[in-house]
Amino acid sequence: MSHDQPLTKEAILDAAEQTLRRYGPDKTSVVDVAKALQVSHGSLYRHFPSKAALREAVTERWLQRIADPLQIIADGTDGSATDRLRLWTDTLIRAKRTYVLEDPEMFAMYASVTQEAVKIIDTHVNLLIGQITQIMDQGMRAGEFKPGRPESAAKAFFMATSLFHHPAHSYQWTSDGIEAAFESVWTLLLAGISMNG
Amino acid sequence: MSHDQPLTKEAILDAAEQTLRRYGPDKTSVVDVAKALQVSHGSLYRHFPSKAALREAVTERWLQRIADPLQIIADGTDGSATDRLRLWTDTLIRAKRTYVLEDPEMFAMYASVTQEAVKIIDTHVNLLIGQITQIMDQGMRAGEFKPGRPESAAKAFFMATSLFHHPAHSYQWTSDGIEAAFESVWTLLLAGISMNG
Repeated sequence: MSHDQPLTKEAILDAAEQTLRRYGPDKTSVVDVAKALQVSHGSLYRHFPSKAALREAVTERWLQRIADPLQIIADGTDGSATDRLRLWTDTLIRAKRTYVLEDPEMFAMYASVTQEAVKIIDTHVNLLIGQITQIMDQGMRAGEFKPGRPESAAKAFFMATSLFHHPAHSYQWTSDGIEAAFESVWTLLLAGISMNG
Repeated sequence: MSHDQPLTKEAILDAAEQTLRRYGPDKTSVVDVAKALQVSHGSLYRHFPSKAALREAVTERWLQRIADPLQIIADGTDGSATDRLRLWTDTLIRAKRTYVLEDPEMFAMYASVTQEAVKIIDTHVNLLIGQITQIMDQGMRAGEFKPGRPESAAKAFFMATSLFHHPAHSYQWTSDGIEAAFESVWTLLLAGISMNG
């Protein structure tokens, strides 16, 4: 990219992501990204005052790529709430597993940012819980799910499935029994949620 | 300890644990433990051929200290299966939280051994799931829990509560909402397990 083009946030994040993939999260500096963009590091520091800020911004955009397709599922109205909850969960789990295999540098960065318990992770988790809340609310209104507080049920569902989507568990996702493990947790949770449970 | 006393496995593990606490898991070598015991490192290598073997043996004994009181609860017969399941879970969670606060070096070692997914961790997890299976079986026989396969329900319950006992989540255990979070997961799981759910 030439330095006479306007330096958009998207362009910086694209370059940051590529640089992070090349050098790894620990070794990438703001200066490396400035070099890749052929701009002065001063102009980059205005957008990202630290390596931590850069890491968080890249992780934030990466998380948005996970959340967007899930929002479409949560916003859907056809079919049962049970089917939608299952599709939402499968889609989240599949995205995480795909990323850990195919984009390991970005995943490692996300896992480390998660451990730092920063605000962007809270925001992301709250966004996902909000999506499940929509589905719970639909299911409760339709008499398909047991009556209760949709948000409380959504939080509990999200936390109870942590083993399958929290990055700290990624070392378990390639183990043989993982699909059967998820089925047994899903069955237990659905029995707790569903009117027929 | 004098070198003319017999070198029991327990004595070695006591010394290893103290040495690990003093120097930290990464810096402790088999030679350090031999020095603490005032024995030749050759006599120690016969018991523990590597640093990894030493770490695992110490972790194994530490895990046994967690499992023993839980076994007593699982073997109990008075009161309801629901109460026993809750007591078992509370006791496990309390033990993990106490250790992370009061014995951080041992906890860090256990967390790292867990990530290495070694056999002793599998054995420990299977032991705990066996204990929950006992409780599930009692509850199902008494008509207190929904009929089903006790082991399958036990595995699902254990996995669905990972956030509260898996060491990778320890950074979340001091957060404000953790008690309320557990209550909401417990309520959801109990609704799935209980005949009245």
